[in-house]
Amino acid sequence: MKFQILTLFPELFPGPLGHSITGRALDKKLWSFEAKNIRDVASDNHKTVDDVPFGGGAGMVMKPDIVEKALLSFPSAGRKIYMSPRGTPLTQNLVKELATEETLTILCGRYEGVDQRVLDAYNFEEISIGDYVLTGGEMAAHILMDATIRLLPNVLGNDTTPYEESFSNGLLEYPHYTRPALWTDANGATHPVPDILTSGHHANIAKWRHEQSMELTKARRPDLLEK
Amino acid sequence: MKFQILTLFPELFPGPLGHSITGRALDKKLWSFEAKNIRDVASDNHKTVDDVPFGGGAGMVMKPDIVEKALLSFPSAGRKIYMSPRGTPLTQNLVKELATEETLTILCGRYEGVDQRVLDAYNFEEISIGDYVLTGGEMAAHILMDATIRLLPNVLGNDTTPYEESFSNGLLEYPHYTRPALWTDANGATHPVPDILTSGHHANIAKWRHEQSMELTKARRPDLLEK
Repeated sequence: MKFQILTLFPELFPGPLGHSITGRALDKKLWSFEAKNIRDVASDNHKTVDDVPFGGGAGMVMKPDIVEKALLSFPSAGRKIYMSPRGTPLTQNLVKELATEETLTILCGRYEGVDQRVLDAYNFEEISIGDYVLTGGEMAAHILMDATIRLLPNVLGNDTTPYEESFSNGLLEYPHYTRPALWTDANGATHPVPDILTSGHHANIAKWRHEQSMELTKARRPDLLEK
Repeated sequence: MKFQILTLFPELFPGPLGHSITGRALDKKLWSFEAKNIRDVASDNHKTVDDVPFGGGAGMVMKPDIVEKALLSFPSAGRKIYMSPRGTPLTQNLVKELATEETLTILCGRYEGVDQRVLDAYNFEEISIGDYVLTGGEMAAHILMDATIRLLPNVLGNDTTPYEESFSNGLLEYPHYTRPALWTDANGATHPVPDILTSGHHANIAKWRHEQSMELTKARRPDLLEK
């Protein structure tokens, strides 16, 4: 899978994705990327990529002609994504869908945003990683890429699994416990693991975990149960 | 504001936060961070930080005693956050609240997660940046930190504003346009900016922008209007 990134900060790629699981997958060529500096296609002396917004207001807007030129510098774009808080929320189901693509082109905005006309003319799909505002789209792209890469074939080893985790069954994941079975904290208080987990009754453990998932989801995220 | 990060990958900090707006703010000491390698507190020869989950299942779980020891190595923890898809969703309102804290301690999980007992014993607040699964909590921490840092005093210059943007009024932001007023794309199609934006009628422009925000939110995120 190839990620083509349009950004004013190409040095942010692979960035954190060059480490750990995603880094090893990059070394094994399970994914690749090309980070294109949008500024490189600006042809004036000042390498202008943005301008003031029509209608007034704070901030600068990335120019449509510049974004187009940067986009067209890739021989083929594949699925085109613009990281934006105005977009469709990223969910695990959308991540699964993205993981089936051969090429994703991701546009990272900075400043106030990107001229709407180039987003419309080239059918960029706007995707939001959450209901908050960032300094730019680059870290949002890291998130989308990390979530997608871990679902690619052969990326996760035997020590991790993409199947039993939050959202895999529409629920939040049950709590985890490991040794020591009786943990004494620094204040001297003792914390045993739930008895059921050391009972050896696999069917009962599976039932308990499902109940924990249900209760947690009901308490924290009733909106997930409504879906 | 100080961020204390508990992680198995301290080299990921400041990472992308060392660039651009957040990087300049770091240079100006508007925020600081200390990334503590959890593995450094493990005292056995293998520097063990995780173990198999009680009750079976794939993946490894970070040990409660190790996480506690790493946490207590900070003289004071401030507000304690565990990045987790099981947590409270991060929103711009929560970001605004976090931006008023003096110290945040952020625990980044890897593998299957962290033993629930240490999260409970030390009242970690679980926060989720979105409904998807990542390879670890470090990139989620970048997101929380970036969103928070940009709201700190003196971080954003005059060329950007934290006031008029998505979620500032509970709505998605209106579309942006900049020069050229009539843009001809590479296929020869012409795209004018909406007339209203070049009219000079400030009140009408403000009204149009609000209508655009409402329509966009209604179409894409009716859930925001229900809140």
